[in-house]
Amino acid sequence: MLDNQAKLKFIGKVTKTNTNNTIITIFPQYRAALEGVNSFSHVIILYWLHLNDNNTQRNILRVTPRRHKNAPEVGVFASRSPVRPNPIGLSVCQLLEVTEKKLTILQFDAIEGTPIIDIKPYILKADCVSNALNPKWVRSGPKT
Amino acid sequence: MLDNQAKLKFIGKVTKTNTNNTIITIFPQYRAALEGVNSFSHVIILYWLHLNDNNTQRNILRVTPRRHKNAPEVGVFASRSPVRPNPIGLSVCQLLEVTEKKLTILQFDAIEGTPIIDIKPYILKADCVSNALNPKWVRSGPKT
Repeated sequence: MLDNQAKLKFIGKVTKTNTNNTIITIFPQYRAALEGVNSFSHVIILYWLHLNDNNTQRNILRVTPRRHKNAPEVGVFASRSPVRPNPIGLSVCQLLEVTEKKLTILQFDAIEGTPIIDIKPYILKADCVSNALNPKWVRSGPKT
Repeated sequence: MLDNQAKLKFIGKVTKTNTNNTIITIFPQYRAALEGVNSFSHVIILYWLHLNDNNTQRNILRVTPRRHKNAPEVGVFASRSPVRPNPIGLSVCQLLEVTEKKLTILQFDAIEGTPIIDIKPYILKADCVSNALNPKWVRSGPKT
């Protein structure tokens, strides 16, 4: 571990995407880690927003979420902006198919070539908080 | 961006923890990113499991989740094991208080000194999938 930083390894990437579904291909050395993923209906995908991995964008701390009507300017930790100190994207996705080397998922908003950094099973009792409160601006517009 | 890897920057760390709540202190240069976090009841915290950041543990691809009765051996991408290629922890946490530099959160399972890598608002329509399916072994034992 370096001083206040660490090294991320890419474990796969988005190899194909269209409006309905997306294929993630896991690199050969990590494929053994996929066993059992198919026993879950949903996964949490962590990915690296590589186009925003530059000093300018990693230093942006405040944004105005444009896709949400009447959104105020907020800190990036109060938004799901792809621009943030560590450009990590997080999406909860429905699994359509899992093979030895690929995941096919429903509606995942990342371009082809996007590096994947982790896949975690979606665990109902840990990840689903149905009484969470959100500010009004989040409730209009797209999911994030 | 390096070849198949990237650099993570720590944005804060766990500064105090007890059985009920945990304090995360954000480093000075990132504090402006906290504005508006207090309008959410819950956040997703991404943290770096620094004690597992070594070649041996980052090469483990299969685990038997010990805290769950009758859990089978599974790939790490089918578990929330702290041992994985990128030792990133993910927890959905209830916010108790947000100040200019600190978050106080309820029940967060990370030791003092744990580096924080991102904070994201918990967005109901993106993150809460109440009809997700989990295998039986996940439903016994602790949350993750």
